[in-house]
Amino acid sequence: MLRIGLIGAGRIGHVHARSVTANPGATLSVVADVIPEVAAALADRYGARSSGDIDSIFTADDVDAVIICSPTPLHVPHILAAARAGKPALSEKPVAMETTAVDQLRTDLAGLDPIVMLGFNRRFDPSFHAIHTAVEAGEVGTVEQVTIISRDPAAPPKEYIAVSGGIFKDMTIHDFDTARYFLGDIATVSAVGQNLDPGLADSGDFDGAIITLTNARGASATITNSRHCASGYDQRLEVFGTQGSLLAENLRPTTVRRSTAEYTEAQDPYYDFFLERYEAAYAAELNEFISAVTQGRHPTPGIEDGAAALRIAEAAGEAARTGRTIAL
Amino acid sequence: MLRIGLIGAGRIGHVHARSVTANPGATLSVVADVIPEVAAALADRYGARSSGDIDSIFTADDVDAVIICSPTPLHVPHILAAARAGKPALSEKPVAMETTAVDQLRTDLAGLDPIVMLGFNRRFDPSFHAIHTAVEAGEVGTVEQVTIISRDPAAPPKEYIAVSGGIFKDMTIHDFDTARYFLGDIATVSAVGQNLDPGLADSGDFDGAIITLTNARGASATITNSRHCASGYDQRLEVFGTQGSLLAENLRPTTVRRSTAEYTEAQDPYYDFFLERYEAAYAAELNEFISAVTQGRHPTPGIEDGAAALRIAEAAGEAARTGRTIAL
Amino acid sequence: MLRIGLIGAGRIGHVHARSVTANPGATLSVVADVIPEVAAALADRYGARSSGDIDSIFTADDVDAVIICSPTPLHVPHILAAARAGKPALSEKPVAMETTAVDQLRTDLAGLDPIVMLGFNRRFDPSFHAIHTAVEAGEVGTVEQVTIISRDPAAPPKEYIAVSGGIFKDMTIHDFDTARYFLGDIATVSAVGQNLDPGLADSGDFDGAIITLTNARGASATITNSRHCASGYDQRLEVFGTQGSLLAENLRPTTVRRSTAEYTEAQDPYYDFFLERYEAAYAAELNEFISAVTQGRHPTPGIEDGAAALRIAEAAGEAARTGRTIAL
Amino acid sequence: MLRIGLIGAGRIGHVHARSVTANPGATLSVVADVIPEVAAALADRYGARSSGDIDSIFTADDVDAVIICSPTPLHVPHILAAARAGKPALSEKPVAMETTAVDQLRTDLAGLDPIVMLGFNRRFDPSFHAIHTAVEAGEVGTVEQVTIISRDPAAPPKEYIAVSGGIFKDMTIHDFDTARYFLGDIATVSAVGQNLDPGLADSGDFDGAIITLTNARGASATITNSRHCASGYDQRLEVFGTQGSLLAENLRPTTVRRSTAEYTEAQDPYYDFFLERYEAAYAAELNEFISAVTQGRHPTPGIEDGAAALRIAEAAGEAARTGRTIAL
Repeated sequence: MLRIGLIGAGRIGHVHARSVTANPGATLSVVADVIPEVAAALADRYGARSSGDIDSIFTADDVDAVIICSPTPLHVPHILAAARAGKPALSEKPVAMETTAVDQLRTDLAGLDPIVMLGFNRRFDPSFHAIHTAVEAGEVGTVEQVTIISRDPAAPPKEYIAVSGGIFKDMTIHDFDTARYFLGDIATVSAVGQNLDPGLADSGDFDGAIITLTNARGASATITNSRHCASGYDQRLEVFGTQGSLLAENLRPTTVRRSTAEYTEAQDPYYDFFLERYEAAYAAELNEFISAVTQGRHPTPGIEDGAAALRIAEAAGEAARTGRTIAL
Repeated sequence: MLRIGLIGAGRIGHVHARSVTANPGATLSVVADVIPEVAAALADRYGARSSGDIDSIFTADDVDAVIICSPTPLHVPHILAAARAGKPALSEKPVAMETTAVDQLRTDLAGLDPIVMLGFNRRFDPSFHAIHTAVEAGEVGTVEQVTIISRDPAAPPKEYIAVSGGIFKDMTIHDFDTARYFLGDIATVSAVGQNLDPGLADSGDFDGAIITLTNARGASATITNSRHCASGYDQRLEVFGTQGSLLAENLRPTTVRRSTAEYTEAQDPYYDFFLERYEAAYAAELNEFISAVTQGRHPTPGIEDGAAALRIAEAAGEAARTGRTIAL
Repeated sequence: MLRIGLIGAGRIGHVHARSVTANPGATLSVVADVIPEVAAALADRYGARSSGDIDSIFTADDVDAVIICSPTPLHVPHILAAARAGKPALSEKPVAMETTAVDQLRTDLAGLDPIVMLGFNRRFDPSFHAIHTAVEAGEVGTVEQVTIISRDPAAPPKEYIAVSGGIFKDMTIHDFDTARYFLGDIATVSAVGQNLDPGLADSGDFDGAIITLTNARGASATITNSRHCASGYDQRLEVFGTQGSLLAENLRPTTVRRSTAEYTEAQDPYYDFFLERYEAAYAAELNEFISAVTQGRHPTPGIEDGAAALRIAEAAGEAARTGRTIAL
Repeated sequence: MLRIGLIGAGRIGHVHARSVTANPGATLSVVADVIPEVAAALADRYGARSSGDIDSIFTADDVDAVIICSPTPLHVPHILAAARAGKPALSEKPVAMETTAVDQLRTDLAGLDPIVMLGFNRRFDPSFHAIHTAVEAGEVGTVEQVTIISRDPAAPPKEYIAVSGGIFKDMTIHDFDTARYFLGDIATVSAVGQNLDPGLADSGDFDGAIITLTNARGASATITNSRHCASGYDQRLEVFGTQGSLLAENLRPTTVRRSTAEYTEAQDPYYDFFLERYEAAYAAELNEFISAVTQGRHPTPGIEDGAAALRIAEAAGEAARTGRTIAL
């Protein structure tokens, strides 16, 4: 039974607290947050103890591994602290706001060989994962074109956007990892940014984007992002290869199809957002983390995957600003 | 080029006139109807001559084969006249209102060996036909359960129902033939009739029905009928066998899927009625008739198929009235 | 926190043990089974105590409510014992093998007014439940025809069939309850039984069936059952009304659609069986039981729902044997 | 009845000959081709006269309008000749190989005000057209992102590619017009070309491409092209707007869905190529041409639509070669 210390009791912290509790191989020992009341509220719900002192978690006897749900700028220090304490860590994405921070982390971790997993949960979505397995098994031949549609149901507050690092590091970062999941190392990045939402006109960020990636072989991934989508959280993936294609459709709460005089076979709106849409993915991700820790192996995706996605995000920003294809 | 004489210029006569004109192997020579103006109107549209004298069509030099679209009670005399004139005939369904009339026809046709095809057009629907081909090829193993959903978009006028022969002979007759297409000879018939439409309360006929058929082997066909369906003309078929199943979905004018905040993937209502829904089936049926005539062979379905469907319809009526399973 | 005593540690007992553990409003106190080792194995898995003495559960201080997963012939005595002990009970279906046993239970329970819920879990399936909610809200107008397809992935052993009570009480009982969920009291029952599986030829039971039910208003429910289905556990429901229809499709592990040179949009086989297919339903059913107990109200479905489904099952057996429609 | 002269008896000429014959408002008078035998073969099939002298068609008394199916380099001279002869023309796409040729055509046509329609048939596809109508009606709010998937079933011979003008002018030209159909004038073009097919390695052309277009408002269109697709001719369109989205699925010969132990709901491969896929579009396009000619109005799309698509194709070529976004 792996005893988990959870850092950060925000929205994503709640997701992991529930996953840990539901997982037969793990138990939630402690929840730490800089706001003690927030930590206590979450800890109480799942029968864990709480702490307002995050650093205490790295030395706690009842913590075998940590899950890092702190704000992005703290991911690197918390990963480092866990590594130094010899505690395996599952950190939320992105690993950092800047590639330079990851470079420093890499230097600081030299010789420690820590077990660190990055929370690119979509690799563990049952449908995306099944596509990956089928692709690896050669079902569609050689992969040529990956099409990713990824739209949020509604734009976050401008306050969130201001500190988010921008759409490419905040939102597309998941899609960049998905692209790498199927294409491996990315060679070129081109991007078009959109400013279509009047409510975000002065946010200083794009509210939509089209990004095209290629790998060294010339296979492509196309990502279509929007900060809003009337029908819900639109998350689709298609992998087209020489022998066929594999498509993951959106998830919905039920399988009901409604038919009336106006339309037929109408289905539910998609899940409203990532907690529901990727519930199974969070659970499977945690499973992989627990398995890796238990077996003493390095889980995937790791820090280098986070670093690679971050580099693509930075290149996408440059590509969107300059209108030039960026070579990595 | 097969020169066609068309008998009856009503709704179904128009369908066949168009099919004949569009078919490269046939030409429409003459349209005959007891109302000369009606015959002329249709004939003019397709560049054919017209006649108010139906009998003249059987002796006409410019008629190689006839298509019989007269009222049901005239199907038998027109089939007989065509047979005696040595002209192949494609007759609309049902072959007659009563099995006794078919028995008499069989007697009258003795020794003539006429080429007669019955217009059970659904056998020629591309989707139903593809299912039949797959079943014959053993794709689903042994057929065990056939499920037929067949609902009209809206009830016909009570005047029509009064002379229709009743729902089983008028509407379900097509489904009985579809059941025979997959199960062969029917051994037992049970049926439940429904009277749910207040507007048809005094029509003296059912406005919905559930019929269960079995063949000697024990395989079943279930038919669900309704005289109305808000979403359009609901025509589905599923064949379930030991190794899998085959399902024909409804047809729609486009493939468009609409997604909004209320629903996703909503499709068009089904085609409104049989002319659009079975347009390809009528054309393929005519092709088979022309091929058979040209090659001098007997097309399927023929008179005996019409007779068998009629017997099932009569048994269904008895089953619905008595609540007893009828053995054929 | 409702403390649950679980009676019977078989397959369905495992399902409920997991549901109870996962439910934030309940905890598994004790597992009782006549085979102590079987009880202990399940109890250990979820941190509960175990007992080989089932009767002890009714007097246990740490048991607020019981879940009855014993063999069907023991449902009635266990429901009665729970009622006499003043402990709410959730009993698996069917309530009994014979209507006479339910009549006796009703007599024995007189004056006790116990809280008893019957495990017709399909009412709690999110898709079926959503259809029910939509129907109740009038979305499809007046219900006219309910179509239920219900096929098991593979036949159980003949030993199971021998003591199952027969297909109608064992398998269709769920569909009878679903029919009642939408149609209310059933007025007539007709049925056709099938013997198509050579491996079950001497089982003394049907391996497939078509059942047609009507209510007093004349609305119908058609149930198609098979003991086997190559594609998995085939569970569909369609409710057709005057204004439209609602269809619940099968559930699958992923949303992946495969396209190759041979076919397009191929989806996963359905879930293999009821544990996976109805996992959400079992959880929701337990939620309703806990809510009802906590609020001191009678949950639905109850004993009378079980009695009604059993009467329909008995009528279906008679209908299939005699070929006659049975009035209830 | 509009009497049509058809120029060019190749593959697309056959399509138009059939459409003309099937259209009640038109008749095929003459087929002209530089190879008289080829002209005669097609003409005979539809009861028209034939000619080896293309110029004769512009002066023929029995020709009210022409359909130009000659090789692309002859489109401009044939459009000009028709205009000078006062005969309305429907010309296949692209209008020319180079924008300079269109500029010259514009000059040469000055003062003639001819009726010329360009054969961008996809605007007339019933599904794409229904989406356009819905968009115009405001069903999805403001259009933000258009996603076009367009893949041929198999690569043409290298000989064809050598004279095709390249993938952007030959294949994507249709998608550029579709993008304009929804976005209006295009402001920027970025593109990534792919060389993935070993069989086309030395063709000097891309065999796949991803193109991103934007209009002045910032709305985007993403086009994914491939010269091959195992599942058939993959033609999909999605229009995403502020209030919802509209998706046109692929067309297939039947609606059959196959389910087995390996997969469920598998559908037919897509139509193999454009003749079958866009059969209804060709017919509707011809209808619009006939209507416009009959009513004496200018049909859409016209020469300027062809010129605009050609400019985008040229910009896409430059964008793919340079990795720079091109402003139009």
